[in-house]
Amino acid sequence: MLTVKVSLKDYPYPIHIGTGISRRADLLKPHIQGRQILVVTNPTVSALYGPALMELLKSMDLIVYEHQLPDGEVYKDLQHVSTIFDALLKQSYDRRCTVLALGGGVIGDMAGFAAACYQRGVNFIQMPTTLLAQVDSSVGGKTGVNHPQGKNMIGAFKQPSVVMIDTEFLESLPAREFSAGLAEVIKYALIRDAEFFNWLESHMPALMAREPKLLAKAIAKCCQHKADVVVADEFEQGERALLNLGHTFGHAIESHTGYSRWLHGEAVAVGMVMAARLSSRRGGLRVAEVNRIMRLLQAAQLPMKPPEGMTAAHFMEYMGHDKKILDGQQRLILMTEFGHSEVVVLSSDELAREVEVLLHE
Amino acid sequence: MLTVKVSLKDYPYPIHIGTGISRRADLLKPHIQGRQILVVTNPTVSALYGPALMELLKSMDLIVYEHQLPDGEVYKDLQHVSTIFDALLKQSYDRRCTVLALGGGVIGDMAGFAAACYQRGVNFIQMPTTLLAQVDSSVGGKTGVNHPQGKNMIGAFKQPSVVMIDTEFLESLPAREFSAGLAEVIKYALIRDAEFFNWLESHMPALMAREPKLLAKAIAKCCQHKADVVVADEFEQGERALLNLGHTFGHAIESHTGYSRWLHGEAVAVGMVMAARLSSRRGGLRVAEVNRIMRLLQAAQLPMKPPEGMTAAHFMEYMGHDKKILDGQQRLILMTEFGHSEVVVLSSDELAREVEVLLHE
Repeated sequence: MLTVKVSLKDYPYPIHIGTGISRRADLLKPHIQGRQILVVTNPTVSALYGPALMELLKSMDLIVYEHQLPDGEVYKDLQHVSTIFDALLKQSYDRRCTVLALGGGVIGDMAGFAAACYQRGVNFIQMPTTLLAQVDSSVGGKTGVNHPQGKNMIGAFKQPSVVMIDTEFLESLPAREFSAGLAEVIKYALIRDAEFFNWLESHMPALMAREPKLLAKAIAKCCQHKADVVVADEFEQGERALLNLGHTFGHAIESHTGYSRWLHGEAVAVGMVMAARLSSRRGGLRVAEVNRIMRLLQAAQLPMKPPEGMTAAHFMEYMGHDKKILDGQQRLILMTEFGHSEVVVLSSDELAREVEVLLHE
Repeated sequence: MLTVKVSLKDYPYPIHIGTGISRRADLLKPHIQGRQILVVTNPTVSALYGPALMELLKSMDLIVYEHQLPDGEVYKDLQHVSTIFDALLKQSYDRRCTVLALGGGVIGDMAGFAAACYQRGVNFIQMPTTLLAQVDSSVGGKTGVNHPQGKNMIGAFKQPSVVMIDTEFLESLPAREFSAGLAEVIKYALIRDAEFFNWLESHMPALMAREPKLLAKAIAKCCQHKADVVVADEFEQGERALLNLGHTFGHAIESHTGYSRWLHGEAVAVGMVMAARLSSRRGGLRVAEVNRIMRLLQAAQLPMKPPEGMTAAHFMEYMGHDKKILDGQQRLILMTEFGHSEVVVLSSDELAREVEVLLHE
């Protein structure tokens, strides 16, 4: 087992990573205060891992209920978060209760937001089941839901009390979702760790074969990076924005396709390719480095081109509501050298011209 | 002008109190960062004070829109908070925007909750127009909405960057609402300030006549008490719970009457009488002291009896979902001596018997 510590001053918490972590009552116990716990999950995940977890929690003498949300980003809205409140109130759960997210990023985001708001905040535990959630969304406390006019527009910062990452969950993950998770893994290398990029190049075939020890190592590396960034800038006033590399373009793609046809990680992969190419046009990366990035994404079986028919105008339209816009200018994360990204401010006009070029090159 | 400072470590803020405060651009300006501001109000308040405030904000070179919520606690729900998100997104407001609450407690709670959740938190300003909001809900950062199964069950702690209390707003306040505000004023005296109780006894006629200087003094006193309690215990882990004196019974009354017929302060007044009488039964207050409390509430033209037909069973039913219940026991705020309240834990059975007695005495 590997453990990464998120050393936030007011609420530090551990991330435990390894095989069989989800069966470890001894790791869970210190992070549960009251006796009431609600497991928030979806039908797909519940069918695979729900009964074992419910059994474990009952054996810990907890009052446990399961609440299922429908499976998919398209249901990540206020209305469905509201069903979690209904479930908590139906069981008369008090402010000492715990909400445990068992699932991918969507489940974690919604359960976390519900935990942030129920009685103005109750205990929250993350048990992420997808690679994407394990390396990214389950750590750092960003929770929330989408609005028809933009992704993650409504939410809260809510840190979990513990993150339990069981690499066994990844055995059942569909290939597309596994690859989508690798997009976020590669992201950390591009933001702040050229050496990790080299390591990923060497080990991508073994990672694609889901070799447990290597997976745990890669996940721990990502969690450590995320923890460092979150501790330095919990509320995204500065450095934390770097974690959005590829996300501005990616969110536009997800919006354009109605949050349904593309997985988040797939959209981020395309977004990172666009960011890399734009970085290269601005002198931050050599063309050979852009090609290395594309080869690694390809080895992870990730897409590299925006959806057919998506124009520069579409991108600009969807980025018009992107959170990273400040006073009409667009803040974008670009690579200023290989393995190092920074926030760059572009005017909307400049960005529109660049996107036009990227789409027609 | 009086100013009370809320000295929270991470986000200290001032409360300005006096006549004409709402016209003071110089007091507002230091607390607005970006250029976008949304005024959240209701049709009643907007008709009286909306245009002047909009004018002032425009003169400060801000992009300003007004969003109206329907008037009343019955609309304090997730669905109506959602209309604030719609308004913010419709105007493409970014994370540097400001949400300003112009109204009573309901407006402040909903606008504050929206500010807490929009893009995971934007700047928030309170400009409370009712006495109740000025002395209580606008200070301390509790925001949220009701659920059919309980009051304020969904919310967030969101501190404002400044609270602007204009005593001129009170001139237009209906008599019933003014009295309801006085219930919360009296509450502070009962929790922690016997001397303030004496002062209120002496000045109640002048306060009822809405003498501006006395009002400012009483409001500042209440804000100071609230600020002290909030700084000591921002997230209500302990002492802050004392501010709920009269609220457990009060919430039950509000729930029973569908959040419509009774004003919050009226329900709290009855709740305080019940708490005082229960305190007396347990040896905390002399009967003469209970009578003094009832005389002061009467002088403020507040009700002192629960709604006709509301039984002990009703109380217990509605208190079953009260936030202050921990593991089946009921935490109640009671007076242990005149001008001093504490948290007391009763078993549900004990409480049921006591409520039965209170209703039939």
